[in-house]
Amino acid sequence: MIWCLSGINTSLYSQNNILVFQSDFGLKDGAVSAMKGVAMGVSPDLKLYDLTHEIPAYNIWEAAYRLVQTAPYWPVGTVFVSVVDPGVGTDRKSVVLLTKSGHYFVTPDNGTLTLVAEQLGIQELREIDEASNRRKNSSESYTFHGRDVYAFTAARLASKAIAFEKVGSKLPGKIVPIPYQKPSFSNGKVKGGIPVLDIQYGNVWSNVDKGVFNKLGARVGDDIRVLVFKNQEKMFEGTVKYVNTFGDVKEGENVGYFNSLLNFSLGINMGSFSEKYQVFSGGEWSIELSKN
Amino acid sequence: MIWCLSGINTSLYSQNNILVFQSDFGLKDGAVSAMKGVAMGVSPDLKLYDLTHEIPAYNIWEAAYRLVQTAPYWPVGTVFVSVVDPGVGTDRKSVVLLTKSGHYFVTPDNGTLTLVAEQLGIQELREIDEASNRRKNSSESYTFHGRDVYAFTAARLASKAIAFEKVGSKLPGKIVPIPYQKPSFSNGKVKGGIPVLDIQYGNVWSNVDKGVFNKLGARVGDDIRVLVFKNQEKMFEGTVKYVNTFGDVKEGENVGYFNSLLNFSLGINMGSFSEKYQVFSGGEWSIELSKN
Amino acid sequence: MIWCLSGINTSLYSQNNILVFQSDFGLKDGAVSAMKGVAMGVSPDLKLYDLTHEIPAYNIWEAAYRLVQTAPYWPVGTVFVSVVDPGVGTDRKSVVLLTKSGHYFVTPDNGTLTLVAEQLGIQELREIDEASNRRKNSSESYTFHGRDVYAFTAARLASKAIAFEKVGSKLPGKIVPIPYQKPSFSNGKVKGGIPVLDIQYGNVWSNVDKGVFNKLGARVGDDIRVLVFKNQEKMFEGTVKYVNTFGDVKEGENVGYFNSLLNFSLGINMGSFSEKYQVFSGGEWSIELSKN
Repeated sequence: MIWCLSGINTSLYSQNNILVFQSDFGLKDGAVSAMKGVAMGVSPDLKLYDLTHEIPAYNIWEAAYRLVQTAPYWPVGTVFVSVVDPGVGTDRKSVVLLTKSGHYFVTPDNGTLTLVAEQLGIQELREIDEASNRRKNSSESYTFHGRDVYAFTAARLASKAIAFEKVGSKLPGKIVPIPYQKPSFSNGKVKGGIPVLDIQYGNVWSNVDKGVFNKLGARVGDDIRVLVFKNQEKMFEGTVKYVNTFGDVKEGENVGYFNSLLNFSLGINMGSFSEKYQVFSGGEWSIELSKN
Repeated sequence: MIWCLSGINTSLYSQNNILVFQSDFGLKDGAVSAMKGVAMGVSPDLKLYDLTHEIPAYNIWEAAYRLVQTAPYWPVGTVFVSVVDPGVGTDRKSVVLLTKSGHYFVTPDNGTLTLVAEQLGIQELREIDEASNRRKNSSESYTFHGRDVYAFTAARLASKAIAFEKVGSKLPGKIVPIPYQKPSFSNGKVKGGIPVLDIQYGNVWSNVDKGVFNKLGARVGDDIRVLVFKNQEKMFEGTVKYVNTFGDVKEGENVGYFNSLLNFSLGINMGSFSEKYQVFSGGEWSIELSKN
Repeated sequence: MIWCLSGINTSLYSQNNILVFQSDFGLKDGAVSAMKGVAMGVSPDLKLYDLTHEIPAYNIWEAAYRLVQTAPYWPVGTVFVSVVDPGVGTDRKSVVLLTKSGHYFVTPDNGTLTLVAEQLGIQELREIDEASNRRKNSSESYTFHGRDVYAFTAARLASKAIAFEKVGSKLPGKIVPIPYQKPSFSNGKVKGGIPVLDIQYGNVWSNVDKGVFNKLGARVGDDIRVLVFKNQEKMFEGTVKYVNTFGDVKEGENVGYFNSLLNFSLGINMGSFSEKYQVFSGGEWSIELSKN
C-alpha cells in the first residue's frame, strides 16, 4: 500500500527493520538488554544496533549531537530510539520525528531532536499515544518509559507492525530546540561553538564548517591563530597548523583539521588537545579563529 | 515433533534462535568475541545479544540480579548464557535451567540461578555432559569453559542443533542458592536488603516490593523515614519524599520511588544518592523504612 | 562460480556475510555506529559483530594480539575490519589479507597483521584501490578512513558485492610486521615476552607456549621460579604454583597456568597479579622461568 503525507509519496521512507538504540543508561546493568528483549518480542526479524549508551547522564545536547553525527550514514527507513530523559514523568511529550532524509527518531521531545531537525529537516512530527502504544501490563511502572513506551513503539514502527500514522496525532512541525552558538564570520575572524569532544583522542570539535572557515582565506599548511573561551574567560591562546591529516606534523604538534563531519577541529598529533590545554565542550565554550 | 517433560507440552518452550550473553569479562579483550564466533560457527542463523559483560569480577550475586532483571522481557524460548565463574575447575556443576516462564539459562550452578529460579520457577534442571557438549579440539584448554562449553552448548541449544534433553542428565530441581535478606514488615517498620545499585544514576534499589511497602500505609507525597545499615552500623538516616517520578521534586531533593522492577528505591533528582551518602549494595547492606 | 588464486580453489574461503569490527574508537561517540550504518547500507543481510573497540588509542600491538586471539574461533569466510591507524593520511597502505585459515582482514598495513599473518598464514594480500572502493561522496573527508574506506570495503567484501580480487592489486605476500621477543629455551631457563594482560582479572599472559615450557620438565603441582623484567630492570622475583585451574590453590596464592590461548600465564586466585606486583605488558616486558 502506498500512503501519502502532505502530498509526498512516503513509500520512500519505508521502514527497513533496522532499529538503532541510544541512551545514557550505560552497559553495566540490564536496562539496554530489557529494551532489546521487548523489541525482539515485537518482531524477531528486527536488526538491533547501538549508537551509544554512554551519553553522560541527562546530557541532552550530547544525545542530539550523536544522532546527527551518525544518522545520515544509516539507510533510509532506519528507526532510532534515543532515551536521555531527565524530565521523565513531567509534561515533556513523547514523539516520533520523520526527517526529510527518511530517518525516524523515537524520543522525548526535550531538545534531543535539535540537530537532526535542523540538519536533516522535519518531514512530519507525531506525538506517541501512550494509551495505544505501550507494552502490555506496564502501567504499574512509572519509571521505565525507555522500555515500555520508546523501545516498544520503535520496534513496532521499525517492523511495520504499525504505520507511522498509528504512532499518534500529528503535531505542528516544531520540535523543542536547545539554543546554541552558530558559526559566523566578521572582521576577519571566525567564531563558533564547541559542541563536542572527540573523547577517545582528546580532539576538540567546533561547529565551524568549511563554508564559514574558508572566509578566512586560509590554505592547508597555514598557521591558524586560535582563541578558546569559556563564557568570557580566555582559556587557550595559540596557533595550530591547518592540515589534511595528523601525519603532516611531528608528534606533539598542534593541528587544525576538518573532522569526519567536516567541521574545523583542534588536535595534537599523538596527543590530547583537550587534556593538555584543559579545553572542553558545551554551550559555554566558544572558539575564535583568524589567519596568523 | 512434540516432546514432553513431566507431562507438560514443552513445545511451549521451543527455542527461538535468540542467544543472550552475560559475563564478567568486560569488552576490552577478545573473550566475548571468541564466544560469539563459536556460536556463529554452530549456526549463522542465531541472533546474538548481550545482557552485560560488566558484571564486577566474580560477583555472582550481581550476575543473578541482572538475569532476573532482564530475562522476563525477552521472548519465551530465549537462551541466556551467563559466565561469572570464580570456581572454574572446581566441582561446581555446569547446568542448563529451564524456568516455568520458558527461558533457558546456561551457567555454572554457583548461585547465578538464585533469583531466576525463585521468581521465574524451576521447570527442569539438567547437568551439561561435557563429554558430548564441548567444542571440538578444546580439551587441551582448562580455563575457557565460557567459550568451549557454555557458549558452545548454549548455541547448540538455541539453534535446536540439540534438544534440551541432550544437554545431559536431569538433576533434582534444586539449584545452588545465595542466601540473602528478604523484605519483611513488623512493628510499623519495613526491612529489606539492597541487592543492587542503579549504577549509572546512583540510585539505591532495595528488594522491598509494593506488597510489603504498602503495609506502612504510606501514600504518594508522604515523607518516608529511612535508615540504612552496613551490617549493624548505621550509614544513613533521613527522609525521602515518596513520589511517582523524579520530576515531582526539585533538583537535589531525596526521593523514594518504585523502580522498573517495582521495588522501593532511593534517589536524588538530578543527583546520586549512592555517592552523596556513600550507600552501596550487597548482602551486608540493609534498609529500614517507616512513615514519618 | 568457482574462481582460483595460485591454483587453490578459493570457494573454500567464500565470504559468509559475517563482519567483525575492531577499533580504538571506544563506544562513547558515534564512530562505530557510523561504520555499521555504512555496512547496513551496503547490505542489510550482513551480520555485524564487535571484537572490541577498547584497544588503547594507537596501540597497534594490542590490535594485532586481539585479532589472533579471536579470529580462529569465527567461521571460515568471516571478514574482520580493524581500524587502529595512527598513520592515517601517511603512506601506509590499506590492505585486505586472506589467511590460509580462510579469514579476511581489512586494515591499514601498519603492524596490525603481524600475528595473524604469522599464526594463520598468508594466503593472499591485496591493496585496497581507494578510487573504486570508497563510499560515494566521501572524498571531501580526509580523516575517517574507518568509515569511508575500511568499513565500506569490508561490507562489500563480506556481502559478496565485490569478489576479493576486486579489492585491488595483489601485493607480494609480506605484511608490515612489529618486531617482538619470541619464546626460547636455553640453560634450563625459558624466556619470553608479555604481549598482553588479561585486563579484567589482572592476569599476566606470556607468549610461552606449551612446547617451549615443557622443556623445563615441570609438572602440574610444581613450583615455578619467575623473574619479570622491564627492559633490563628486575620488577618481580618469586614463585608460582603450576596448576590446571585457579581452584587448585587457596585465595590469594600465585599461580602459573596455561590460558585459553595455551600460553603460560601468571595469576592470583581471586586477585590481580598485575596490580599486586605492578607487572604490565608490551615490548619492553619479558619473563624468565625455571624449575624451582
